[in-house]
Amino acid sequence: MSKISVGVLGATGMVGQTYVSLLSNHPWFEVKYVAASPRSAGKSYAQAIAGRQHLDGSAAAKNGIGSDTGIAGNVGKLIVEDANDLSKAIDAQKAGCCDFVFSALEMTKDQIKALEEAYAAAGIPVVSNASAHRWTADVAMLIAEVNPHHTDLIPIQRKNHGWDKGFIVVKPNCSIQSYTTPLWALMQKGYEIKRLVVSTMQAVSGAGYPGVPSWDMIDNIVPYIGGEEEKSETEPLKIFGSINQEGVLVNAAEPKISAHCNRVPVSDGHTACVSLEFGTKKPSIEEVKKIWTEFKALPQEEHFPSAPQRPIIVREEADRPQPRKDRDADKAMAVVVGRIRPCTVFDLRFTGLSHNTIRGAAGGGILSAELLKYKGFI
Amino acid sequence: MSKISVGVLGATGMVGQTYVSLLSNHPWFEVKYVAASPRSAGKSYAQAIAGRQHLDGSAAAKNGIGSDTGIAGNVGKLIVEDANDLSKAIDAQKAGCCDFVFSALEMTKDQIKALEEAYAAAGIPVVSNASAHRWTADVAMLIAEVNPHHTDLIPIQRKNHGWDKGFIVVKPNCSIQSYTTPLWALMQKGYEIKRLVVSTMQAVSGAGYPGVPSWDMIDNIVPYIGGEEEKSETEPLKIFGSINQEGVLVNAAEPKISAHCNRVPVSDGHTACVSLEFGTKKPSIEEVKKIWTEFKALPQEEHFPSAPQRPIIVREEADRPQPRKDRDADKAMAVVVGRIRPCTVFDLRFTGLSHNTIRGAAGGGILSAELLKYKGFI
Amino acid sequence: MSKISVGVLGATGMVGQTYVSLLSNHPWFEVKYVAASPRSAGKSYAQAIAGRQHLDGSAAAKNGIGSDTGIAGNVGKLIVEDANDLSKAIDAQKAGCCDFVFSALEMTKDQIKALEEAYAAAGIPVVSNASAHRWTADVAMLIAEVNPHHTDLIPIQRKNHGWDKGFIVVKPNCSIQSYTTPLWALMQKGYEIKRLVVSTMQAVSGAGYPGVPSWDMIDNIVPYIGGEEEKSETEPLKIFGSINQEGVLVNAAEPKISAHCNRVPVSDGHTACVSLEFGTKKPSIEEVKKIWTEFKALPQEEHFPSAPQRPIIVREEADRPQPRKDRDADKAMAVVVGRIRPCTVFDLRFTGLSHNTIRGAAGGGILSAELLKYKGFI
Amino acid sequence: MSKISVGVLGATGMVGQTYVSLLSNHPWFEVKYVAASPRSAGKSYAQAIAGRQHLDGSAAAKNGIGSDTGIAGNVGKLIVEDANDLSKAIDAQKAGCCDFVFSALEMTKDQIKALEEAYAAAGIPVVSNASAHRWTADVAMLIAEVNPHHTDLIPIQRKNHGWDKGFIVVKPNCSIQSYTTPLWALMQKGYEIKRLVVSTMQAVSGAGYPGVPSWDMIDNIVPYIGGEEEKSETEPLKIFGSINQEGVLVNAAEPKISAHCNRVPVSDGHTACVSLEFGTKKPSIEEVKKIWTEFKALPQEEHFPSAPQRPIIVREEADRPQPRKDRDADKAMAVVVGRIRPCTVFDLRFTGLSHNTIRGAAGGGILSAELLKYKGFI
Repeated sequence: MSKISVGVLGATGMVGQTYVSLLSNHPWFEVKYVAASPRSAGKSYAQAIAGRQHLDGSAAAKNGIGSDTGIAGNVGKLIVEDANDLSKAIDAQKAGCCDFVFSALEMTKDQIKALEEAYAAAGIPVVSNASAHRWTADVAMLIAEVNPHHTDLIPIQRKNHGWDKGFIVVKPNCSIQSYTTPLWALMQKGYEIKRLVVSTMQAVSGAGYPGVPSWDMIDNIVPYIGGEEEKSETEPLKIFGSINQEGVLVNAAEPKISAHCNRVPVSDGHTACVSLEFGTKKPSIEEVKKIWTEFKALPQEEHFPSAPQRPIIVREEADRPQPRKDRDADKAMAVVVGRIRPCTVFDLRFTGLSHNTIRGAAGGGILSAELLKYKGFI
Repeated sequence: MSKISVGVLGATGMVGQTYVSLLSNHPWFEVKYVAASPRSAGKSYAQAIAGRQHLDGSAAAKNGIGSDTGIAGNVGKLIVEDANDLSKAIDAQKAGCCDFVFSALEMTKDQIKALEEAYAAAGIPVVSNASAHRWTADVAMLIAEVNPHHTDLIPIQRKNHGWDKGFIVVKPNCSIQSYTTPLWALMQKGYEIKRLVVSTMQAVSGAGYPGVPSWDMIDNIVPYIGGEEEKSETEPLKIFGSINQEGVLVNAAEPKISAHCNRVPVSDGHTACVSLEFGTKKPSIEEVKKIWTEFKALPQEEHFPSAPQRPIIVREEADRPQPRKDRDADKAMAVVVGRIRPCTVFDLRFTGLSHNTIRGAAGGGILSAELLKYKGFI
Repeated sequence: MSKISVGVLGATGMVGQTYVSLLSNHPWFEVKYVAASPRSAGKSYAQAIAGRQHLDGSAAAKNGIGSDTGIAGNVGKLIVEDANDLSKAIDAQKAGCCDFVFSALEMTKDQIKALEEAYAAAGIPVVSNASAHRWTADVAMLIAEVNPHHTDLIPIQRKNHGWDKGFIVVKPNCSIQSYTTPLWALMQKGYEIKRLVVSTMQAVSGAGYPGVPSWDMIDNIVPYIGGEEEKSETEPLKIFGSINQEGVLVNAAEPKISAHCNRVPVSDGHTACVSLEFGTKKPSIEEVKKIWTEFKALPQEEHFPSAPQRPIIVREEADRPQPRKDRDADKAMAVVVGRIRPCTVFDLRFTGLSHNTIRGAAGGGILSAELLKYKGFI
Repeated sequence: MSKISVGVLGATGMVGQTYVSLLSNHPWFEVKYVAASPRSAGKSYAQAIAGRQHLDGSAAAKNGIGSDTGIAGNVGKLIVEDANDLSKAIDAQKAGCCDFVFSALEMTKDQIKALEEAYAAAGIPVVSNASAHRWTADVAMLIAEVNPHHTDLIPIQRKNHGWDKGFIVVKPNCSIQSYTTPLWALMQKGYEIKRLVVSTMQAVSGAGYPGVPSWDMIDNIVPYIGGEEEKSETEPLKIFGSINQEGVLVNAAEPKISAHCNRVPVSDGHTACVSLEFGTKKPSIEEVKKIWTEFKALPQEEHFPSAPQRPIIVREEADRPQPRKDRDADKAMAVVVGRIRPCTVFDLRFTGLSHNTIRGAAGGGILSAELLKYKGFI
């Protein structure tokens, strides 16, 4: 089978580089088009990221899906195009080099919104890492294990816009990944979750590059990340939502979420301390562990290439999960949970961890694309 | 006025060294007796801590109450005694060198319990940093701004034991200091607090020395501290308790507390993210800020030497408090709070910070001793 | 005595803020004029640095020469002027508010060069932290303990330019401060130093703010700092130079220096590992320690307010100096040296440490200004 | 081919765990025997390291030679024996479970010396990570790419002791690995190296676990590591030595080395800044790069399983190598060098980096064992 050609928009940034790294030996997809800001346009990709290559080749290798030779093979030689110049992407598409794009654009929200729509209108599907379209009503915000059925919004979106082939899907914020899948697994088993309080300790890579100054991260934490708490409180409700008969995605009413988002001196891996309240039906601690350990969803059942064997790994040690020791679990695509215990205020407490630039960004985007390919959308 | 002579038990450990440092220029107290493990006994204090001097002279200087010449003046020349050998302390007391002791002993709980009782029985009051006696019914667990009236337990304790002059008071765990005083200030104004969820990010100095291995604190956090959550959940209830007519301290029934305690790569300064629920009477955010800014208690009113001007400092910036930037506020004795905002699950959210080895340990102990002196107990 | 009025150019940056902090209770100088980029102009100083206040009030307090109330007193209320608008400074000078300026400008080298000359031409002496004029032939690069006689260049510089009252002096790079004074102390005693190899481990505050991204400083070091090695190798030669009969500063020919400059995850405090070769006359290790311990210079003899009691503090412990524990020694103005031992390749090895934003920047600049005042230049 | 059975002594420590991890899918060797202190004896290996499992399964996976399922397969089920009880090892050997051992013992030097000799005398070859036998005259200190011919000492050693099958070889200290192979590659091309000054910045894993307290590694460096400088200065001379006609290993006379060893807050990866002086024949910078890039030795030529493709990787970027980004290069077995430039005092300067627990410890030990197998000694 020849591979599907992929473009990466914003390919020179931290998430963009992660996409390129993770896709270096992907069985279904091959990066054949890279675009970024006008500043990088015209250079080879290798030149464009020289001196700001954030990931070593070993980063790909360590996740088991890349090489360790630096910028994987041919991508380094690709000429970077201006992401604003849609005509270049259209030419690439015609030449069979850009069947769809991953968007890791770093612009204003309005610019991204407009640009992603332009790509979709031109017939180029967009799997976006950006927050711009997360609250656009007919755009699915996907976690492949949680709401794969939200791809049903794609035909509706196409119809709304009069688009033929193009569409937009997005992935949610990296901060919610370490608890959203565990919540869903419990909800799937019939346990309502009424409300929860979550405190996160988030890695600096979540802020991109240069991101957080080291002056603020040595012997220090910062108890604030702009916009992060609002996203953490609302995005799960869209993801848990259902599409009604009119083809409208109706957000879930619960759980009510209160988030405290903190930046800590960790390179990769967001940790979340969660206290949650169930509805009247409450599982035992043992049952929670069993549900999480056994949880599997479409990506596992259909063996998507980037799917972790188990989306949720339960650790029994008192002091796990820890970012440096657990973030890379199962190609950095699994959520690792531990400290599962009763809550003295609500019902259940636990600590969750996920790799924010892999599971929470590029890896999650690739898994969404695998879902879209599986369903025939790309 | 000649100064009151003070002994420090466990003087060579991290908290013990902090006591010596903070007391180096104290207007009321003077360290004239130091005791530690048999290993250190017989050496001069300077010799005993050579090669494991955790605090530089500047640490004292920066808190405005020490010198910057290292081990302050005469203390370095004192001969360290074996803390287990009570006869030495009794001799020192007779010689006018040990009117009372600060206990920063590092032994098993049972050993500390017995040893502190022996000192008290010998007529030497003990202000303890250890957790051993925190739940002894007739021992007051003091935060000088919150429950100074709990010193009323001292006569009861003396009577229970048949002690004449000696007694024991303790300070609570360092992890609760960044929210207990703020809670109390609100309670004082008539606002019941029903329950709260707190996540802490605690400094490594809280574990003493050598404490947490650096292997676990580089690019990492550890979501667990043994025993810390239980202490965080129960100790405030004793501190908020009241002494009934039978002279028995009855713990407060509320708030119900759920704690998640994490170790983070910060040298000093514990941070706490708090979500709390009021009773039916709920203050506005502005009122909360006003109550905290204006809060003063006995140590402020009577100008105790180690008392911060304001026990609670409110910061309005979005990204404060931060450990490295705020832990030293007002001689490291103030609690700094910020991010005061409504909670989407409960009523109020905020982030609190306090210096764990100063406010939360040695500095807090000294402030308690100042309270005891003010009340005539020492 | 009424105080000398001081202006700070670049007052909102990290070094500028350090100047304001250190000057908050200075006995001779008072900040009455602050200037920065056009972006800050028109705001109060407090407003201008809101949200980017890098130093807490306690930073000043801990160095014993400030307050702990944040932006000291009246400076917070000063209106920030545009540093490019010289007319504002001239007006301030006429009003008695700007007798001289500290320059902590952050612009291109050419812009700084021109602007500092314009201030000097307008009769406003400039004590500069910038590197722009370090190699201008008639500009003295001062370390007050090493080359106070280089102020003899000021009349020559004035004559060269036809300036009446204004002049420019500069301070050297922060990276050389931890070994230049120790070298000088040995040279003063008649020990030639032929050559040396130095490896530095430099703090992130040396790069200003935002400076080094935290992505590069977590579980990492960066073995390169642009331009730093060249400065480290050449600046000591100018400082060790002598003014000949024609009034020309002739650089020293030795020592030949080879520098490796590394960035490490430390907030403040540059450490240097030095191996050096003497001329034929070689001191013993004991003699080196004695020379350093006893070294005093003009600032000590004349008791300048910011002068450390001893410019060089010798530590005998095997594992000192350490940045966090020693950088604040003597108001962060002393160089702390340790590990003094024979070199297996050259003659002498040692490790030196100095606080880069205090001794190596703002504090060093203030000490230079004290020297200039003492000599009657301001 | 059935695999050779391997024992790991000190299997529960940090280096021991790294051995187990790296050997989990080794094509030639299989861990069938694990021994440690009496405290661990009798437990399963999984139990013995529970709560102190320093490496995650992903550590093995990321180096391309392990699994990501935690304690690889059957090793977790092995019962830990007391390493002091040689009879257990002899039984295991008879049962075909202990053809040779890797020693990562953590005892006193004398204890290790005696115990390793006892194993050898019992016919069990020892590949040791410990420093105990490094200076034993007839024990080879191996870097497989540098002195594979030193295995000629084995027959001599056997003869000296009257041993039949057993023998001891050791690996050198982790601190020298980032420059010894580069030096050797130049020496091989006929360039004498007369002397060098090296400053290291060493990772905390080099101190084992618990190792360096985090109190000393937050916002700090420690400019001292006990015994490390002596090892760094002398071990290369043995490695560069040659065996004379009497079968005696004669150490090299040069280069003379001066080492400054520092501990920095990095988890894994030792960095070295080197200034060196050649003899009369001096290569150009370009020639140095060419020699290093092209350097290959026996492990590469014979394709040993753990051999990196290139022992030395040259990076051209100004700011590399960096520990977090480069330590994992080529299964963490390559030395990465950068900043290759002329020295202003000597001839050549560069920065070298190697992974201290892989290349510098367990990985290097395994490569030595592969050499021994290749040569028929095991």
